[in-house]
Amino acid sequence: MSEISSKVDKEARQKAASVIRNRFLQLIDQIKKGEPPIMEIPQRNINNTHYDEVRKLLLLGDKKLKRSFLDLNEAKRFMQTSLMGSIIYEALINDEYPTIRDLFYRGKHTLVLRGPDNRTVEENTWDEQKESDSVIVDIEVFTSLLREEMLILSKEKGKVVGDMRIRSGNDVIDLSKMGHGAYSIEPTPDLIDFVDINADFVLVVEKDAVFQQLHRAGFWRQYRSILVTSAGQPDRATRRFVRRLNEEHKLPVYILTDADPYGWYIYSVFRIGSIALSYESERLATPNARFLGVSMADIFGTDKKKAYLSESDRRSFIIKAKDYDKKRAEEIKNYPWFQTKGWKEEIDIFMKKQAKLEIEAMASKGLKFLAFTYLPDKIQKQDYIA
Amino acid sequence: MSEISSKVDKEARQKAASVIRNRFLQLIDQIKKGEPPIMEIPQRNINNTHYDEVRKLLLLGDKKLKRSFLDLNEAKRFMQTSLMGSIIYEALINDEYPTIRDLFYRGKHTLVLRGPDNRTVEENTWDEQKESDSVIVDIEVFTSLLREEMLILSKEKGKVVGDMRIRSGNDVIDLSKMGHGAYSIEPTPDLIDFVDINADFVLVVEKDAVFQQLHRAGFWRQYRSILVTSAGQPDRATRRFVRRLNEEHKLPVYILTDADPYGWYIYSVFRIGSIALSYESERLATPNARFLGVSMADIFGTDKKKAYLSESDRRSFIIKAKDYDKKRAEEIKNYPWFQTKGWKEEIDIFMKKQAKLEIEAMASKGLKFLAFTYLPDKIQKQDYIA
Repeated sequence: MSEISSKVDKEARQKAASVIRNRFLQLIDQIKKGEPPIMEIPQRNINNTHYDEVRKLLLLGDKKLKRSFLDLNEAKRFMQTSLMGSIIYEALINDEYPTIRDLFYRGKHTLVLRGPDNRTVEENTWDEQKESDSVIVDIEVFTSLLREEMLILSKEKGKVVGDMRIRSGNDVIDLSKMGHGAYSIEPTPDLIDFVDINADFVLVVEKDAVFQQLHRAGFWRQYRSILVTSAGQPDRATRRFVRRLNEEHKLPVYILTDADPYGWYIYSVFRIGSIALSYESERLATPNARFLGVSMADIFGTDKKKAYLSESDRRSFIIKAKDYDKKRAEEIKNYPWFQTKGWKEEIDIFMKKQAKLEIEAMASKGLKFLAFTYLPDKIQKQDYIA
Repeated sequence: MSEISSKVDKEARQKAASVIRNRFLQLIDQIKKGEPPIMEIPQRNINNTHYDEVRKLLLLGDKKLKRSFLDLNEAKRFMQTSLMGSIIYEALINDEYPTIRDLFYRGKHTLVLRGPDNRTVEENTWDEQKESDSVIVDIEVFTSLLREEMLILSKEKGKVVGDMRIRSGNDVIDLSKMGHGAYSIEPTPDLIDFVDINADFVLVVEKDAVFQQLHRAGFWRQYRSILVTSAGQPDRATRRFVRRLNEEHKLPVYILTDADPYGWYIYSVFRIGSIALSYESERLATPNARFLGVSMADIFGTDKKKAYLSESDRRSFIIKAKDYDKKRAEEIKNYPWFQTKGWKEEIDIFMKKQAKLEIEAMASKGLKFLAFTYLPDKIQKQDYIA
């Protein structure tokens, strides 16, 4: 297996293994000095998560928790963190590519302990994957390594096509030569080398089927763009890939979703990060991503702008907002990063009209309308919400 | 747009448009002759679906229904079928690539009719996508064209890597040069040309994350195989792609899923087809696909065979079967295509042990165990269930 592993993988393994090793060696030092072993780990909860107005990101604060081996309330979690650290380290030095599900299984067993009264006690290392997943995140914040850097793999949905060449593993791949198919983004997007890019912007499409249509219609060729789909809620690899295109190649990123609070949230995850994963926003979020549409103003028009839909289009295509849409909109309205003029207007129109619309409704006016009128028009006028 | 469209797309369009045209011209002939227009469409229901013991496929029978424009009970469905036929035809000749969701929107409107008593009546063409989807299937069986042949696109999840070259659109793509990523199968797999294939078998993996692992470990290189993932329940394109590899290149197809009734059903869809889509089994199913594992005998062993798991592995990894698993197993037990010695034994052990197992449990014994011991061992011994 190791002969087949690519050079980038080998280097990534060595780096991650050495970081983990050094981090845990500190604990051994404490023990050697006769001190109780204590891990200092950044707190991951809403109290230690804040929206950074300057960097425009959801970030983890400075608060740390001390996990002491000798504290009865912390001993189990200390054991779990050490166990996971050692499993990941073993996987790294053995050329393994575990998934988070694997790591759950690998660590799952029963410890049999003998108490001071000589009775045996049984304790499971963990019972549910959500326990072991949470421990993996502890390792991430404890070591400042993302799980991708530790060669932990996962299911991936993101796809990309466009006029660019990348190096992944031992191959150079031309993403403009994918035929009618597409390139599936790898689970470790930091190991990708961008060889060259010939594009003016990135268009991220929420829906895979719409991505297929735009690809087939030649959108990215005609409008010099990199076309990406997240196929619903974006996974980490897709977010990181988009962020790198923006950061390293200064390509503007436009997000295209359904016109509803669920679509707004997808945009928000790309742009700001998510509360659950705020410890990684710094690496995964694209703080200047732009919501291209479909916007409420596109549907209904405003004083300043003509609607893209006719009255009869609206009658046929609009869907009445459900209660959960309204509830979601109320929540989103309160997020600090939606406190801009553009977003306030957008959410207001939604609340007033109680209406939502799928991107497919735009395509049903003709794919040519979506690909060659609506999208280029919006981009040319820089008609986005940020 | 048409300049960008590939030659294969243009040819496919012309063919499909001409078939649809001819099929509907027959209706016009009937009208010209003064006859009531009638569509004869194969019945799509459980009464007209049978398991063909010889061809080992779920197939649609000979029963047809007559849909007459002048029959009040049929007039609406007749209108819907004609409407959908014309929308698809328009899309074909206008170089469009609609999705089934688009087709729903394109046809959705209100007809205003004036009755003999001079009162107006309003009638929606359709209200829900499941109505328009069902009409699309009517068009498929009426014209004997699969929706893919009519250039109707859809969301796709299937991925592939391996030592093979394909032509898709205007590109030749080398599926052995995908780096750590993979090739996303296009929505119209019949338009793919297999240029050359250098492999001994196809391994289809239910889970995307396990596919990622096997790919990264170099499984397909070491064991000369084409590696495919369906990422859960297979979509039509993945099924057709696998079927073509089997039929046109005589590659044996092995299916790897979790050891549970849901995994068996995924195998069954690949091999036999599904009841809902029996009209297309003939094109999409792979009647000699083999269930490689994980099998109950792999977990527990039998008189003739040693288990791959130790007693302690079983204690850690086995999941108790849920009620819905048992219910599903009872249903599957009665399907005609599960009436083989191998499947009866498999389902019996499941019922007795009431246990299931995820593929990841195998990987947690070490990815090397899964990739370089378990899988090659099973294939070399031809230890599959069929």
